[in-house]
Amino acid sequence: MLGGACTYISLAASYFTKVSIVGVVGEDFAQEDWDLLAGRGIGLEGLEKAPGKTFFWSGVYSEDMNDRETLRTDLNVFADFDPKLPESYRSMPYLLLGNIQPALQAKVRDQMDGARVVAGDTMNLWINETRDDLLAAIGKWDILLINDSEAQLLTGEKNLKKAAKAILEMGPNTLIIKRGEYGAVLFRDDYHFVAPAYLLDRVFDPTGAGDCFAAGFMGHLAAREVDLTDKSLDPKTLAQAVVYGSVMGSFCCEQFGVERFRTLTRAEIDERYREFQGFTQF
Amino acid sequence: MLGGACTYISLAASYFTKVSIVGVVGEDFAQEDWDLLAGRGIGLEGLEKAPGKTFFWSGVYSEDMNDRETLRTDLNVFADFDPKLPESYRSMPYLLLGNIQPALQAKVRDQMDGARVVAGDTMNLWINETRDDLLAAIGKWDILLINDSEAQLLTGEKNLKKAAKAILEMGPNTLIIKRGEYGAVLFRDDYHFVAPAYLLDRVFDPTGAGDCFAAGFMGHLAAREVDLTDKSLDPKTLAQAVVYGSVMGSFCCEQFGVERFRTLTRAEIDERYREFQGFTQF
Repeated sequence: MLGGACTYISLAASYFTKVSIVGVVGEDFAQEDWDLLAGRGIGLEGLEKAPGKTFFWSGVYSEDMNDRETLRTDLNVFADFDPKLPESYRSMPYLLLGNIQPALQAKVRDQMDGARVVAGDTMNLWINETRDDLLAAIGKWDILLINDSEAQLLTGEKNLKKAAKAILEMGPNTLIIKRGEYGAVLFRDDYHFVAPAYLLDRVFDPTGAGDCFAAGFMGHLAAREVDLTDKSLDPKTLAQAVVYGSVMGSFCCEQFGVERFRTLTRAEIDERYREFQGFTQF
Repeated sequence: MLGGACTYISLAASYFTKVSIVGVVGEDFAQEDWDLLAGRGIGLEGLEKAPGKTFFWSGVYSEDMNDRETLRTDLNVFADFDPKLPESYRSMPYLLLGNIQPALQAKVRDQMDGARVVAGDTMNLWINETRDDLLAAIGKWDILLINDSEAQLLTGEKNLKKAAKAILEMGPNTLIIKRGEYGAVLFRDDYHFVAPAYLLDRVFDPTGAGDCFAAGFMGHLAAREVDLTDKSLDPKTLAQAVVYGSVMGSFCCEQFGVERFRTLTRAEIDERYREFQGFTQF
Protein backbone atom coordinates (compact mmCIF):
# COMPACT_ATOMS: atom_id res chain seq x y z
CA MET A 1 0.00 0.00 0.00
CA LEU A 2 0.93 3.68 -0.10
CA GLY A 3 3.69 4.47 2.39
CA GLY A 4 7.00 6.25 2.86
CA ALA A 5 8.21 9.10 5.08
CA CYS A 6 7.18 11.77 2.60
CA THR A 7 3.64 10.43 2.41
CA TYR A 8 3.15 10.18 6.17
CA ILE A 9 4.74 13.56 6.82
CA SER A 10 2.76 15.42 4.19
CA LEU A 11 -0.57 13.87 5.14
CA ALA A 12 -0.08 14.55 8.86
CA ALA A 13 1.35 18.06 8.41
CA SER A 14 -1.49 19.02 6.05
CA TYR A 15 -3.76 19.43 9.09
CA PHE A 16 -1.56 22.28 10.30
CA THR A 17 -0.22 24.14 7.29
CA LYS A 18 0.17 24.16 3.51
CA VAL A 19 2.63 21.40 2.59
CA SER A 20 4.52 20.74 -0.63
CA ILE A 21 6.65 17.68 -1.21
CA VAL A 22 9.74 16.69 -3.15
CA GLY A 23 10.19 13.03 -3.97
CA VAL A 24 10.08 10.40 -6.67
CA VAL A 25 7.62 7.67 -7.60
CA GLY A 26 7.53 5.14 -10.43
CA GLU A 27 5.08 4.59 -13.24
CA ASP A 28 3.15 2.19 -11.00
CA PHE A 29 2.18 4.93 -8.55
CA ALA A 30 -1.61 4.73 -8.30
CA GLN A 31 -3.85 7.59 -9.31
CA GLU A 32 -5.87 7.09 -6.12
CA ASP A 33 -2.72 7.67 -4.05
CA TRP A 34 -1.99 10.82 -6.03
CA ASP A 35 -5.58 11.86 -5.38
CA LEU A 36 -5.32 11.19 -1.65
CA LEU A 37 -2.35 13.58 -1.39
CA ALA A 38 -3.93 16.19 -3.67
CA GLY A 39 -7.18 15.87 -1.72
CA ARG A 40 -5.37 17.04 1.42
CA GLY A 41 -4.16 20.11 -0.48
CA ILE A 42 -0.57 18.86 -0.69
CA GLY A 43 1.59 20.56 -3.32
CA LEU A 44 2.84 17.89 -5.74
CA GLU A 45 4.88 19.98 -8.17
CA GLY A 46 8.06 18.47 -6.72
CA LEU A 47 6.82 14.88 -6.91
CA GLU A 48 8.70 13.44 -9.86
CA LYS A 49 7.38 10.47 -11.84
CA ALA A 50 10.27 8.38 -13.21
CA PRO A 51 10.44 5.32 -15.45
CA GLY A 52 10.39 2.14 -13.38
CA LYS A 53 8.74 1.07 -10.12
CA THR A 54 8.15 3.00 -6.91
CA PHE A 55 10.32 2.33 -3.83
CA PHE A 56 8.98 -0.69 -1.92
CA TRP A 57 9.41 -1.81 1.67
CA SER A 58 7.82 -4.60 3.66
CA GLY A 59 8.43 -5.88 7.18
CA VAL A 60 6.99 -7.68 10.16
CA TYR A 61 6.59 -6.34 13.68
CA SER A 62 7.27 -8.19 16.92
CA GLU A 63 4.21 -9.06 18.98
CA ASP A 64 4.70 -6.07 21.30
CA MET A 65 5.19 -3.78 18.26
CA ASN A 66 8.46 -2.43 19.64
CA ASP A 67 10.68 -4.11 17.04
CA ARG A 68 10.38 -4.79 13.35
CA GLU A 69 12.23 -6.87 10.83
CA THR A 70 12.57 -5.77 7.21
CA LEU A 71 11.43 -8.43 4.78
CA ARG A 72 12.22 -6.59 1.59
CA THR A 73 13.57 -3.23 0.42
CA ASP A 74 13.49 -2.42 -3.31
CA LEU A 75 14.97 1.01 -4.02
CA ASN A 76 13.62 1.02 -7.60
CA VAL A 77 13.32 4.63 -8.92
CA PHE A 78 14.71 5.85 -5.63
CA ALA A 79 18.15 4.43 -6.47
CA ASP A 80 18.92 7.30 -8.87
CA PHE A 81 16.91 10.02 -7.17
CA ASP A 82 18.39 13.47 -7.51
CA PRO A 83 16.04 15.87 -5.75
CA LYS A 84 15.42 19.12 -7.65
CA LEU A 85 13.23 21.66 -5.92
CA PRO A 86 10.71 23.58 -8.02
CA GLU A 87 11.41 27.31 -8.01
CA SER A 88 8.16 27.87 -6.10
CA TYR A 89 9.45 25.82 -3.16
CA ARG A 90 12.68 27.73 -2.63
CA SER A 91 11.26 30.56 -0.57
CA MET A 92 9.21 28.34 1.73
CA PRO A 93 10.14 28.95 5.37
CA TYR A 94 9.91 25.46 6.92
CA LEU A 95 11.77 22.43 5.64
CA LEU A 96 11.39 18.92 7.06
CA LEU A 97 13.83 16.35 5.69
CA GLY A 98 12.53 12.80 5.85
CA ASN A 99 14.80 9.89 6.62
CA ILE A 100 16.96 9.30 3.50
CA GLN A 101 20.69 9.34 2.77
CA PRO A 102 22.22 12.41 4.47
CA ALA A 103 23.84 13.47 1.18
CA LEU A 104 20.39 13.75 -0.43
CA GLN A 105 19.06 15.60 2.60
CA ALA A 106 21.97 18.04 2.25
CA LYS A 107 21.18 18.55 -1.44
CA VAL A 108 17.63 19.59 -0.63
CA ARG A 109 18.72 21.72 2.29
CA ASP A 110 21.23 23.58 0.11
CA GLN A 111 18.46 24.46 -2.34
CA MET A 112 16.55 26.19 0.46
CA ASP A 113 19.14 28.58 1.84
CA GLY A 114 16.59 31.01 3.15
CA ALA A 115 14.55 28.57 5.19
CA ARG A 116 13.66 29.85 8.66
CA VAL A 117 13.65 26.38 10.26
CA VAL A 118 15.20 23.18 8.92
CA ALA A 119 14.46 19.87 10.61
CA GLY A 120 15.61 16.38 9.74
CA ASP A 121 15.16 12.78 10.72
CA THR A 122 17.76 10.03 10.43
CA MET A 123 18.34 6.39 11.40
CA ASN A 124 20.95 3.86 12.52
CA LEU A 125 21.81 2.92 8.91
CA TRP A 126 23.15 6.42 8.13
CA ILE A 127 24.84 6.75 11.51
CA ASN A 128 26.72 3.52 10.85
CA GLU A 129 27.38 3.78 7.13
CA THR A 130 27.57 7.47 6.22
CA ARG A 131 28.52 9.07 9.50
CA ASP A 132 30.60 11.91 7.99
CA ASP A 133 27.84 12.86 5.55
CA LEU A 134 25.35 12.76 8.38
CA LEU A 135 27.41 15.01 10.66
CA ALA A 136 27.89 17.46 7.79
CA ALA A 137 24.14 17.47 7.10
CA ILE A 138 23.07 17.79 10.75
CA GLY A 139 25.45 20.73 11.13
CA LYS A 140 23.10 22.76 8.93
CA TRP A 141 19.84 21.78 10.64
CA ASP A 142 17.97 23.63 13.38
CA ILE A 143 16.18 20.50 14.58
CA LEU A 144 17.24 16.87 14.70
CA LEU A 145 14.60 14.21 15.31
CA ILE A 146 16.05 10.86 16.32
CA ASN A 147 15.06 7.91 18.46
CA ASP A 148 16.70 7.06 21.76
CA SER A 149 18.79 4.09 20.65
CA GLU A 150 20.00 6.10 17.64
CA ALA A 151 20.92 9.02 19.89
CA GLN A 152 23.09 6.60 21.87
CA LEU A 153 24.61 5.24 18.68
CA LEU A 154 25.35 8.72 17.36
CA THR A 155 26.99 9.99 20.55
CA GLY A 156 28.24 6.92 22.38
CA GLU A 157 26.39 8.21 25.45
CA LYS A 158 23.90 5.89 27.19
CA ASN A 159 22.53 8.66 29.41
CA LEU A 160 19.78 10.60 27.62
CA LYS A 161 20.75 14.03 28.97
CA LYS A 162 24.40 13.53 28.11
CA ALA A 163 23.52 12.25 24.62
CA ALA A 164 21.31 15.31 24.14
CA LYS A 165 24.07 17.67 25.20
CA ALA A 166 26.47 16.04 22.75
CA ILE A 167 23.98 16.33 19.87
CA LEU A 168 23.22 19.99 20.62
CA GLU A 169 26.94 20.59 20.09
CA MET A 170 26.71 19.11 16.58
CA GLY A 171 24.73 22.03 15.21
CA PRO A 172 20.99 21.80 15.91
CA ASN A 173 19.60 24.22 18.50
CA THR A 174 16.65 21.89 19.12
CA LEU A 175 16.66 18.12 19.52
CA ILE A 176 13.79 15.71 19.78
CA ILE A 177 14.52 12.24 21.07
CA LYS A 178 11.68 9.85 20.27
CA ARG A 179 11.06 7.02 22.71
CA GLY A 180 8.37 5.05 20.89
CA GLU A 181 5.54 3.99 23.18
CA TYR A 182 7.07 6.11 25.97
CA GLY A 183 6.77 9.43 24.15
CA ALA A 184 9.37 12.01 23.29
CA VAL A 185 11.71 14.54 24.87
CA LEU A 186 12.60 17.94 23.43
CA PHE A 187 15.96 19.41 24.37
CA ARG A 188 17.37 22.90 23.94
CA ASP A 189 20.36 24.40 25.73
CA ASP A 190 18.19 25.97 28.42
CA TYR A 191 14.97 23.99 28.27
CA HIS A 192 13.63 20.48 28.01
CA PHE A 193 10.13 19.07 27.76
CA VAL A 194 9.01 15.49 28.28
CA ALA A 195 5.82 14.24 26.63
CA PRO A 196 4.34 10.79 27.10
CA ALA A 197 2.81 8.90 24.21
CA TYR A 198 -0.95 8.51 24.02
CA LEU A 199 -2.06 5.18 25.46
CA LEU A 200 -3.90 3.28 22.75
CA ASP A 201 -6.11 0.26 23.39
CA ARG A 202 -4.51 -1.26 20.36
CA VAL A 203 -1.42 -0.32 18.35
CA PHE A 204 -2.62 -1.56 15.00
CA ASP A 205 0.40 -0.49 12.92
CA PRO A 206 3.20 1.80 14.14
CA THR A 207 4.63 2.28 10.63
CA GLY A 208 5.00 6.00 9.98
CA ALA A 209 4.32 7.06 13.57
CA GLY A 210 7.72 8.77 13.87
CA ASP A 211 7.12 10.63 10.61
CA CYS A 212 3.67 11.73 11.76
CA PHE A 213 5.19 12.89 15.03
CA ALA A 214 7.69 15.02 13.11
CA ALA A 215 4.89 16.36 10.92
CA GLY A 216 2.67 17.39 13.83
CA PHE A 217 5.63 19.02 15.56
CA MET A 218 6.86 20.89 12.50
CA GLY A 219 3.32 21.64 11.32
CA HIS A 220 2.56 23.45 14.55
CA LEU A 221 5.82 25.44 14.39
CA ALA A 222 4.92 26.48 10.84
CA ALA A 223 1.36 27.38 11.78
CA ARG A 224 2.72 29.58 14.60
CA GLU A 225 5.49 30.96 12.36
CA VAL A 226 8.04 30.05 15.03
CA ASP A 227 11.62 31.27 14.69
CA LEU A 228 13.82 29.05 16.87
CA THR A 229 16.52 31.70 17.17
CA ASP A 230 14.09 34.32 18.48
CA LYS A 231 15.17 35.12 22.04
CA SER A 232 11.59 35.94 23.03
CA LEU A 233 10.26 32.56 21.88
CA ASP A 234 8.04 31.05 24.59
CA PRO A 235 9.31 27.48 25.11
CA LYS A 236 5.71 26.43 25.80
CA THR A 237 5.11 26.83 22.05
CA LEU A 238 7.70 24.11 21.47
CA ALA A 239 6.08 21.96 24.15
CA GLN A 240 2.72 22.36 22.44
CA ALA A 241 4.32 21.34 19.15
CA VAL A 242 5.70 18.18 20.78
CA VAL A 243 2.22 17.32 22.02
CA TYR A 244 0.76 17.84 18.54
CA GLY A 245 3.50 15.53 17.30
CA SER A 246 2.48 12.89 19.84
CA VAL A 247 -1.16 13.32 18.85
CA MET A 248 -0.39 12.74 15.17
CA GLY A 249 1.83 9.74 15.94
CA SER A 250 -0.98 8.18 17.96
CA PHE A 251 -3.56 8.56 15.18
CA CYS A 252 -1.13 7.01 12.71
CA CYS A 253 -0.97 3.80 14.78
CA GLU A 254 -4.72 3.29 14.88
CA GLN A 255 -5.11 1.83 11.41
CA PHE A 256 -2.98 0.11 8.80
CA GLY A 257 -0.58 2.31 6.84
CA VAL A 258 -2.02 5.74 6.01
CA GLU A 259 -5.65 4.61 6.32
CA ARG A 260 -6.38 6.77 9.38
CA PHE A 261 -5.72 9.91 7.35
CA ARG A 262 -8.61 9.14 5.03
CA THR A 263 -11.08 10.09 7.78
CA LEU A 264 -9.11 12.08 10.39
CA THR A 265 -10.38 15.60 11.09
CA ARG A 266 -8.77 18.61 12.70
CA ALA A 267 -11.49 18.48 15.37
CA GLU A 268 -10.33 14.98 16.35
CA ILE A 269 -6.76 16.27 16.59
CA ASP A 270 -7.76 19.12 18.86
CA GLU A 271 -9.88 16.80 21.00
CA ARG A 272 -6.94 14.45 21.51
CA TYR A 273 -4.71 17.42 22.33
CA ARG A 274 -7.16 18.27 25.13
CA GLU A 275 -6.99 14.65 26.29
CA PHE A 276 -3.21 15.06 26.58
CA GLN A 277 -3.80 18.04 28.85
CA GLY A 278 -6.13 15.90 30.97
CA PHE A 279 -3.67 13.09 31.59
CA THR A 280 -0.49 15.14 31.97
CA GLN A 281 -1.44 18.29 33.86
CA PHE A 282 -1.25 18.39 37.63
CA MET B 1 24.76 -1.37 53.70
CA LEU B 2 21.31 -0.52 55.09
CA GLY B 3 18.58 -1.36 52.55
CA GLY B 4 15.21 -3.02 52.14
CA ALA B 5 11.77 -1.84 51.04
CA CYS B 6 10.76 -0.83 54.55
CA THR B 7 13.86 1.32 54.95
CA TYR B 8 13.47 3.14 51.64
CA ILE B 9 9.74 3.62 52.09
CA SER B 10 9.95 4.95 55.62
CA LEU B 11 12.83 7.31 54.89
CA ALA B 12 11.16 8.73 51.76
CA ALA B 13 7.67 8.97 53.27
CA SER B 14 9.02 10.68 56.38
CA TYR B 15 9.27 13.93 54.38
CA PHE B 16 5.49 13.92 53.95
CA THR B 17 3.92 12.43 57.06
CA LYS B 18 4.55 10.60 60.34
CA VAL B 19 5.60 7.05 59.48
CA SER B 20 5.79 3.94 61.65
CA ILE B 21 7.19 0.65 60.45
CA VAL B 22 6.71 -3.04 61.09
CA GLY B 23 9.57 -5.36 60.23
CA VAL B 24 12.32 -7.53 61.58
CA VAL B 25 16.08 -7.16 61.85
CA GLY B 26 18.80 -9.35 63.34
CA GLU B 27 21.23 -8.76 66.19
CA ASP B 28 23.72 -7.38 63.65
CA PHE B 29 21.53 -4.38 62.79
CA ALA B 30 23.74 -1.35 63.35
CA GLN B 31 22.94 1.30 65.90
CA GLU B 32 23.74 4.00 63.34
CA ASP B 33 21.05 2.57 61.03
CA TRP B 34 18.57 2.58 63.88
CA ASP B 35 19.60 6.18 64.54
CA LEU B 36 19.12 7.19 60.90
CA LEU B 37 15.51 5.98 60.97
CA ALA B 38 14.82 7.46 64.40
CA GLY B 39 16.44 10.71 63.29
CA ARG B 40 13.79 11.04 60.57
CA GLY B 41 11.09 10.65 63.23
CA ILE B 42 10.15 7.15 62.10
CA GLY B 43 8.17 5.12 64.64
CA LEU B 44 10.15 1.96 65.41
CA GLU B 45 7.91 0.28 67.96
CA GLY B 46 7.01 -2.37 65.35
CA LEU B 47 10.62 -3.04 64.34
CA GLU B 48 11.39 -6.38 65.95
CA LYS B 49 14.94 -7.44 66.80
CA ALA B 50 15.30 -11.22 66.51
CA PRO B 51 18.16 -13.64 67.21
CA GLY B 52 20.30 -14.16 64.09
CA LYS B 53 21.31 -11.98 61.18
CA THR B 54 19.38 -9.35 59.21
CA PHE B 55 18.02 -10.14 55.74
CA PHE B 56 20.73 -9.62 53.12
CA TRP B 57 20.58 -9.01 49.37
CA SER B 58 23.26 -8.15 46.83
CA GLY B 59 23.13 -7.78 43.06
CA VAL B 60 24.72 -6.22 40.01
CA TYR B 61 23.08 -3.88 37.52
CA SER B 62 23.44 -3.91 33.74
CA GLU B 63 25.38 -1.03 32.24
CA ASP B 64 22.19 0.83 31.29
CA MET B 65 20.78 0.23 34.82
CA ASN B 66 17.56 -1.25 33.42
CA ASP B 67 18.24 -4.83 34.55
CA ARG B 68 19.80 -6.35 37.61
CA GLU B 69 20.98 -9.77 38.58
CA THR B 70 20.74 -11.03 42.15
CA LEU B 71 24.06 -12.28 43.49
CA ARG B 72 22.85 -13.40 46.89
CA THR B 73 19.69 -13.44 48.98
CA ASP B 74 19.91 -14.55 52.63
CA LEU B 75 16.50 -14.52 54.34
CA ASN B 76 18.06 -14.88 57.81
CA VAL B 77 15.64 -13.57 60.50
CA PHE B 78 13.13 -12.80 57.76
CA ALA B 79 12.53 -16.54 57.17
CA ASP B 80 10.36 -16.86 60.28
CA PHE B 81 8.93 -13.36 60.33
CA ASP B 82 5.41 -13.15 61.69
CA PRO B 83 4.42 -9.49 61.64
CA LYS B 84 2.60 -8.33 64.74
CA LEU B 85 1.40 -4.74 64.76
CA PRO B 86 1.74 -2.74 67.96
CA GLU B 87 -1.63 -1.64 69.34
CA SER B 88 -0.71 1.98 68.60
CA TYR B 89 -0.46 1.24 64.86
CA ARG B 90 -3.89 -0.29 64.41
CA SER B 91 -5.83 2.93 64.09
CA MET B 92 -3.43 4.51 61.58
CA PRO B 93 -5.27 5.51 58.40
CA TYR B 94 -2.67 4.77 55.67
CA LEU B 95 -1.00 1.42 55.15
CA LEU B 96 1.69 0.75 52.55
CA LEU B 97 2.70 -2.89 52.18
CA GLY B 98 6.24 -3.37 50.89
CA ASN B 99 7.12 -6.14 48.51
CA ILE B 100 7.09 -9.38 50.55
CA GLN B 101 5.14 -12.66 50.38
CA PRO B 102 1.45 -11.84 49.79
CA ALA B 103 0.44 -14.00 52.76
CA LEU B 104 2.50 -11.77 55.08
CA GLN B 105 1.08 -8.66 53.43
CA ALA B 106 -2.42 -10.03 54.08
CA LYS B 107 -1.56 -10.69 57.73
CA VAL B 108 -0.59 -7.06 58.24
CA ARG B 109 -3.54 -5.78 56.27
CA ASP B 110 -5.97 -7.85 58.40
CA GLN B 111 -4.57 -6.25 61.55
CA MET B 112 -5.52 -2.81 60.19
CA ASP B 113 -9.18 -3.29 59.39
CA GLY B 114 -9.99 0.37 59.79
CA ALA B 115 -7.36 1.74 57.43
CA ARG B 116 -8.67 4.42 55.06
CA VAL B 117 -6.26 3.55 52.23
CA VAL B 118 -4.26 0.34 51.78
CA ALA B 119 -1.57 0.16 49.09
CA GLY B 120 0.76 -2.65 48.20
CA ASP B 121 3.69 -3.49 45.99
CA THR B 122 4.50 -6.92 44.54
CA MET B 123 6.87 -8.60 42.09
CA ASN B 124 7.19 -11.37 39.48
CA LEU B 125 8.27 -13.92 42.11
CA TRP B 126 4.90 -13.77 43.91
CA ILE B 127 2.93 -13.60 40.67
CA ASN B 128 4.59 -16.80 39.51
CA GLU B 129 4.87 -18.72 42.77
CA THR B 130 2.03 -17.59 45.04
CA ARG B 131 -0.54 -16.32 42.58
CA ASP B 132 -3.61 -17.34 44.60
CA ASP B 133 -2.28 -15.70 47.77
CA LEU B 134 -1.45 -12.59 45.76
CA LEU B 135 -4.90 -12.32 44.20
CA ALA B 136 -6.50 -12.79 47.62
CA ALA B 137 -4.26 -10.06 49.08
CA ILE B 138 -4.75 -7.58 46.21
CA GLY B 139 -8.51 -8.05 46.53
CA LYS B 140 -8.34 -6.15 49.83
CA TRP B 141 -6.11 -3.29 48.63
CA ASP B 142 -7.15 0.13 47.37
CA ILE B 143 -3.93 0.67 45.45
CA LEU B 144 -1.64 -1.73 43.64
CA LEU B 145 1.83 -0.56 42.61
CA ILE B 146 3.46 -2.78 40.03
CA ASN B 147 5.90 -2.44 37.16
CA ASP B 148 4.93 -2.78 33.51
CA SER B 149 6.39 -6.23 32.85
CA GLU B 150 4.78 -7.52 36.04
CA ALA B 151 1.43 -6.06 35.03
CA GLN B 152 1.70 -8.05 31.80
CA LEU B 153 2.67 -11.17 33.74
CA LEU B 154 -0.24 -10.75 36.16
CA THR B 155 -2.88 -10.21 33.48
CA GLY B 156 -1.51 -11.83 30.32
CA GLU B 157 -2.20 -8.52 28.54
CA LYS B 158 0.63 -6.85 26.62
CA ASN B 159 -1.32 -3.64 26.09
CA LEU B 160 -0.92 -1.32 29.08
CA LYS B 161 -4.51 -0.03 29.05
CA LYS B 162 -5.95 -3.52 28.79
CA ALA B 163 -3.66 -4.79 31.55
CA ALA B 164 -4.76 -1.87 33.72
CA LYS B 165 -8.44 -2.60 33.11
CA ALA B 166 -7.91 -6.23 34.10
CA ILE B 167 -6.11 -5.27 37.33
CA LEU B 168 -8.79 -2.74 38.31
CA GLU B 169 -11.22 -5.67 38.17
CA MET B 170 -9.12 -7.56 40.75
CA GLY B 171 -10.06 -5.25 43.60
CA PRO B 172 -7.94 -2.06 43.71
CA ASN B 173 -9.68 1.18 42.71
CA THR B 174 -6.31 2.74 41.88
CA LEU B 175 -3.40 1.24 40.01
CA ILE B 176 0.08 2.56 39.44
CA ILE B 177 2.15 0.97 36.72
CA LYS B 178 5.82 1.87 37.10
CA ARG B 179 7.90 2.11 33.92
CA GLY B 180 11.38 2.65 35.36
CA GLU B 181 13.27 5.38 33.53
CA TYR B 182 10.10 6.22 31.58
CA GLY B 183 8.01 7.19 34.60
CA ALA B 184 4.69 5.89 35.84
CA VAL B 185 1.02 5.78 34.91
CA LEU B 186 -1.87 5.99 37.39
CA PHE B 187 -5.13 4.33 36.38
CA ARG B 188 -8.61 4.58 37.88
CA ASP B 189 -11.88 3.58 36.21
CA ASP B 190 -12.53 7.08 34.94
CA TYR B 191 -9.10 8.73 35.00
CA HIS B 192 -5.50 8.16 34.12
CA PHE B 193 -2.37 10.23 34.55
CA VAL B 194 1.00 9.74 32.89
CA ALA B 195 4.15 11.08 34.56
CA PRO B 196 7.63 10.94 33.07
CA ALA B 197 10.62 10.15 35.22
CA TYR B 198 13.08 12.90 36.07
CA LEU B 199 16.05 12.92 33.71
CA LEU B 200 19.18 12.45 35.76
CA ASP B 201 22.69 13.14 34.46
CA ARG B 202 23.70 9.95 36.15
CA VAL B 203 21.66 7.10 37.62
CA PHE B 204 24.08 6.15 40.36
CA ASP B 205 22.02 3.36 41.94
CA PRO B 206 18.36 2.62 41.17
CA THR B 207 17.97 0.26 44.14
CA GLY B 208 14.94 1.34 46.16
CA ALA B 209 13.65 3.82 43.57
CA GLY B 210 10.32 1.98 43.22
CA ASP B 211 9.91 1.95 47.01
CA CYS B 212 10.69 5.66 47.21
CA PHE B 213 8.18 6.30 44.44
CA ALA B 214 5.52 4.45 46.44
CA ALA B 215 6.51 6.40 49.55
CA GLY B 216 6.24 9.80 47.89
CA PHE B 217 2.90 8.87 46.36
CA MET B 218 1.41 7.46 49.55
CA GLY B 219 3.05 10.14 51.70
CA HIS B 220 1.30 12.87 49.73
CA LEU B 221 -2.06 11.07 49.96
CA ALA B 222 -1.59 10.80 53.72
CA ALA B 223 -0.54 14.44 54.06
CA ARG B 224 -3.69 15.46 52.15
CA GLU B 225 -5.85 12.95 54.08
CA VAL B 226 -7.14 11.59 50.77
CA ASP B 227 -10.03 9.13 50.75
CA LEU B 228 -9.96 7.27 47.43
CA THR B 229 -13.65 6.41 47.64
CA ASP B 230 -14.69 10.05 48.09
CA LYS B 231 -16.74 10.97 45.02
CA SER B 232 -15.62 14.59 45.27
CA LEU B 233 -11.91 13.70 45.21
CA ASP B 234 -10.07 15.91 42.69
CA PRO B 235 -8.04 13.53 40.49
CA LYS B 236 -5.36 16.22 40.27
CA THR B 237 -4.51 15.36 43.89
CA LEU B 238 -3.64 11.85 42.71
CA ALA B 239 -1.62 13.28 39.82
CA GLN B 240 0.32 15.46 42.27
CA ALA B 241 0.98 12.39 44.40
CA VAL B 242 2.37 10.55 41.36
CA VAL B 243 4.72 13.46 40.71
CA TYR B 244 5.90 13.44 44.33
CA GLY B 245 6.49 9.73 43.87
CA SER B 246 8.61 10.40 40.78
CA VAL B 247 10.51 13.11 42.65
CA MET B 248 11.37 10.74 45.50
CA GLY B 249 12.36 7.97 43.12
CA SER B 250 14.71 10.33 41.32
CA PHE B 251 16.47 11.44 44.51
CA CYS B 252 16.92 7.80 45.53
CA CYS B 253 18.94 7.10 42.36
CA GLU B 254 21.41 9.92 42.92
CA GLN B 255 23.57 8.17 45.48
CA PHE B 256 24.35 4.65 46.59
CA GLY B 257 21.69 2.92 48.68
CA VAL B 258 19.95 5.23 51.15
CA GLU B 259 22.79 7.77 51.23
CA ARG B 260 20.79 10.54 49.56
CA PHE B 261 18.36 10.58 52.49
CA ARG B 262 21.09 11.61 54.89
CA THR B 263 21.09 15.12 53.41
CA LEU B 264 17.84 15.49 51.44
CA THR B 265 15.57 18.35 52.54
CA ARG B 266 11.90 19.04 51.98
CA ALA B 267 12.91 22.24 50.17
CA GLU B 268 14.85 20.17 47.61
CA ILE B 269 11.79 17.97 47.11
CA ASP B 270 9.54 20.96 46.49
CA GLU B 271 12.10 22.50 44.13
CA ARG B 272 12.21 19.32 42.06
CA TYR B 273 8.41 19.16 42.04
CA ARG B 274 8.46 22.65 40.45
CA GLU B 275 11.01 21.39 37.92
CA PHE B 276 8.53 18.66 36.97
CA GLN B 277 5.95 21.36 36.31
CA GLY B 278 8.47 23.13 34.09
CA PHE B 279 9.21 20.17 31.85
CA THR B 280 5.71 18.70 31.62
CA GLN B 281 3.32 21.64 31.42
CA PHE B 282 2.28 23.02 28.08
